[in-house]
Amino acid sequence: MKVLATQTKSERTQAAILAAAEALFAKNGYERTTLRDIAALARIDPAMIIRYFDSKDALFARVATFDLMLPDLRTVERSAIGTTLVRHFLRVWEGERGNSGLAILLRSAASNEHAAKKLRELFKSQVMPALKYAGADAYAAERAGLVASQLLGLALCRYVLKLPPAVTMSREFIVAEVGKTIQRYVAGDE
Amino acid sequence: MKVLATQTKSERTQAAILAAAEALFAKNGYERTTLRDIAALARIDPAMIIRYFDSKDALFARVATFDLMLPDLRTVERSAIGTTLVRHFLRVWEGERGNSGLAILLRSAASNEHAAKKLRELFKSQVMPALKYAGADAYAAERAGLVASQLLGLALCRYVLKLPPAVTMSREFIVAEVGKTIQRYVAGDE
Repeated sequence: MKVLATQTKSERTQAAILAAAEALFAKNGYERTTLRDIAALARIDPAMIIRYFDSKDALFARVATFDLMLPDLRTVERSAIGTTLVRHFLRVWEGERGNSGLAILLRSAASNEHAAKKLRELFKSQVMPALKYAGADAYAAERAGLVASQLLGLALCRYVLKLPPAVTMSREFIVAEVGKTIQRYVAGDE
Repeated sequence: MKVLATQTKSERTQAAILAAAEALFAKNGYERTTLRDIAALARIDPAMIIRYFDSKDALFARVATFDLMLPDLRTVERSAIGTTLVRHFLRVWEGERGNSGLAILLRSAASNEHAAKKLRELFKSQVMPALKYAGADAYAAERAGLVASQLLGLALCRYVLKLPPAVTMSREFIVAEVGKTIQRYVAGDE
């Protein structure tokens, strides 16, 4: 327990908040977990959570784990990569599993550096490797960056900003139109 | 002055904060304006600003005016619409005028409904009319939504989340690659 012994009081408080948040979000979900519950479990004042972590959104983004479950693109027919990725993206965001976690992460990442870091890590650990095998070449990182810019932009407009045309577009329209864009970004002009 | 007379105390406080913020942001810019300055000018406690407006970012997004200065696409050669729009977009965001205002608006809009509303209004009053004449058809709103999803996504990745490949891409790479996407969204497959 040497590590614990050398923690400062502030570090111990933050660790207690993170542990309590992780346990309660996992058990009760985002909506039914309050900052008051987390503070009670961590045995600290609720104001400390805001002080160290900004907001409930940012705390959730910090402790939640996100598995994008990206398909192995080596098994997807080459010309169908774009539509496959967009269909998958819509399923994950509008989830059969009712998962609003990604929208919370995105909303939070725009103003909280910890959440932004988590999103960058998600990109590096899940998006980059998935796209690596899909296209030729030295531009793998740039291609992945372009894919992220289009898909995160769609998520931003549709789920966070709620821009009218982005909200009302049908899934099939998005799959067709954005699918062509993703296809070109991943596989190049062919 | 009947309107003023019927304002509640809370409305008067908010109006005083907005007036002070507008004056100071305009005079001193975003960075050199503090919440303390705004509170002093409005003769209120700085805590009231957070209570009514969330944050300095959100307050700025509320009072700043944004002119995207979009080109008249009727005067642009049809095949060059995509690259023209992307070049313009980069100039505005990375501005000759050193304008970080749009990045602050975007960051703030992700978590603050007033800022999100402002962004939706900007889309409706400036982006929609500019694109209206560019493409054929009944899908003008959807086309504008697709354009917004790609350009705001690029701004999100490059200026707000600072996703490595989106940050390091050259302007020319972006103009070429994203230009093709915007061209297709605006003018259709031709």
